[in-house]
Parts: sequence; C-alpha cells; structure tokens
Amino acid sequence: MPTHHQTGPSAGTGSNIDARTQRSRTTVLAAATDLLESTGVGGFSVDEVARRSGVAKTTIYRHWPTREALVLDACAGLDDRYDLPDTGTLHGDLRRFVADLVCMVEQAGWAAVLPSIVDAAERNAAFADMHAQIQKGHASLVSQIAERAIGRGELPAETDTALLASTVLGPVFYRRWFSREPFDAAFIDAVTTRAIRGAQGSD
Amino acid sequence: MPTHHQTGPSAGTGSNIDARTQRSRTTVLAAATDLLESTGVGGFSVDEVARRSGVAKTTIYRHWPTREALVLDACAGLDDRYDLPDTGTLHGDLRRFVADLVCMVEQAGWAAVLPSIVDAAERNAAFADMHAQIQKGHASLVSQIAERAIGRGELPAETDTALLASTVLGPVFYRRWFSREPFDAAFIDAVTTRAIRGAQGSD
Repeated sequence: MPTHHQTGPSAGTGSNIDARTQRSRTTVLAAATDLLESTGVGGFSVDEVARRSGVAKTTIYRHWPTREALVLDACAGLDDRYDLPDTGTLHGDLRRFVADLVCMVEQAGWAAVLPSIVDAAERNAAFADMHAQIQKGHASLVSQIAERAIGRGELPAETDTALLASTVLGPVFYRRWFSREPFDAAFIDAVTTRAIRGAQGSD
Repeated sequence: MPTHHQTGPSAGTGSNIDARTQRSRTTVLAAATDLLESTGVGGFSVDEVARRSGVAKTTIYRHWPTREALVLDACAGLDDRYDLPDTGTLHGDLRRFVADLVCMVEQAGWAAVLPSIVDAAERNAAFADMHAQIQKGHASLVSQIAERAIGRGELPAETDTALLASTVLGPVFYRRWFSREPFDAAFIDAVTTRAIRGAQGSD
C-alpha cells in the first residue's frame, strides 16, 4: 500500500498530486452521497454530481468509469456503524435492537435510499450484490443476538436465525416502507415479544 | 356516461373515432404495463411506450399529459383479483393466504414493480397515494381474515389487526425483497403459526 498520505504536502510533486486527487475524490463522493439521499439510485446523475461538487465530469469519469460505479461507491458511504446491545438478556438485547432499528429506518441516510437499491437489485447484478451485503449485515445483527441467547439457554440450539431475522426485521421494514404507519413503543414491544415467543415455541 | 361503445361501428363517424381512440388507449396501456414490468417506475419512458405500441407520442400525450400520469395508469393495471380463502378456521385461512401471497410476490407482475413504486413514493405524493391504496388492499385481506376469526372466538375482540398484518406481510415481503432467500412450506407454516400465536397471546 502507498503511504504518501503520511508524508504531507512537502514531500514533493507526486504527493501534491495524490493529495489533490484524494481531495477531489472525497469532494465528489460527499456530493454523490448527498445527491443519492435526495434522489435515490434512479434519479442519480453524474452531471448533477459535477454541478454540486464543482469537479469536472472528465475528472469524475477518470475515477469512476461509469455512473453505476459512482452510485455503488456512494451507497457504500451511507453505511452506519452500529454497536450491538449487550444487556445480558435476550429480551433486553432484542428490545434495544428493535428500538435502534426503528430509529435508523426513520432517520438514517440509507433508509431513504434503500428502496431504490432494492429496485435496482431487481434488474442489475452489481446492485443485487451490494444489497445482499447490506442485508447480510442487518441479519447478522439478529443472529449475533440469537447466538448469545442460545449460549445462555434462552433459545433452543436449533433456532432458525434466518427465520428469527425475518420476524424481527420484516415487521419493521414493512411498517417503514410499505404501510408507512407511525412507530411507537407498543409496536417495538410487540415485535420484540412476538419474535421471541415465536422462536421459543415449536412451530 | 356516453354509450357509444354499445352502438357498434355502424353508428357513425363519432363512434368510429371513439372506438379507434379506445383501441389506441388499450394498446398504449398494454405496452406501458409490459414496459413497467421490465423497467420499474424509474426506467419508464414515453418514448419507449411509443416505440413498443406503435402509437405516436403526440397521441399518447393527448391521453396522458405527463409521463407520471401514464405510469400511474399502468400501475393500476397490474392489480390482481384475489378471492380470500374461507376455510372455516383462522389457521386454514391464514395458511392459505400466506401461501397465495408467496406465490404472488414470486410471480405476479406487480411484484417486480413494487420496489420502484415504494421508491417513487419516498419522493412523490401521487405515487405515495397509489402505494397507500395497494398497501390498504393487502392489509385489508389480513383484517378480513382476522374479523372472521374474532367472530368465531378464535382471536380476542381487541386484536390489533394492523399489527397482525405487519407480522404476516412483513416476513413475506422481507424475504422477497430484502433477504431474497427462497420460500418453502416450512417458512409459510412458521409465519402462519407465529402470527397466530402472537395475536392470541398478550404482549
């Protein structure tokens, strides 16, 4: 890996160019992420990124050969860091996770963009791959909570964690993107309790 | 309401024009629905509808003043007729409904288009209204099953049918559009059983 970034602007012309290139990449990506949040994948255009960032289209195309490559990079920038709750009980962990998830689907930048990624994934393999990554990230949070609960004897060892994920994430995503009903604490409680009851009972 | 359509082509020039107008409307709408199924809302263009239908753009714009008006009409044409199961038990009705829903989200024309409608609804009031109508249709099927079960004493009278809809539709929609895992009978059984158990227990 090159280490130019650590040597500072005084290290010579090569570094200056690298630093400038890096700055314009950062500027373009920030503008691209902003645009994506307001238009989704469908309305995204390199022309508009050039206008918003003040970076010439020819420069943008030098870094990202296609509109799609830039959209995919901008999507990757929407990701949130999330620290999984660890309260010591399945109910505590899952209640907190559902509440955090509700907050994210209501407020996070990716939440307004996700339907356009889902749509693009219906028709385009690169978006399908990216969507699968986002999706695995969400489902693995539920799996980690379930694994801990299995370790504590709160869930049976044979728990179907993919099914559990669909009973936790499904109702929240449904309410956010399909029924568009408001979220409240009663809904968060009910999703938590029903998902646990479902996983503990035998089908 | 005009009754020209019943008088046949011999009824005069006015009728001929009406019949021709009606035919070109039907041709355009069929082409628009086909296009919508392959591109979603985002990739839909009046140019392409004109090309596929062989009807001039100027004629299309006479019927639908904007691209959006044509997309909205084409969306309305995707709707399925559905006869609600009536097996005499909550489990029977819901199991059958979930199985039918899985079949529809895997095969129906609207299933490939719905994510693009959800995306358009994030930014456009006309699509948000149309999406709300589609959504109410889906949720009301679950409500009707629940009402019958309440009548038979299988569910408490105070059952939250909107919550029940989110625990039935949520996991199915999640698996179709988010996790993209395959459906099987075990999933259909588990969604049915868990939704009923959730609605029967107290949260």
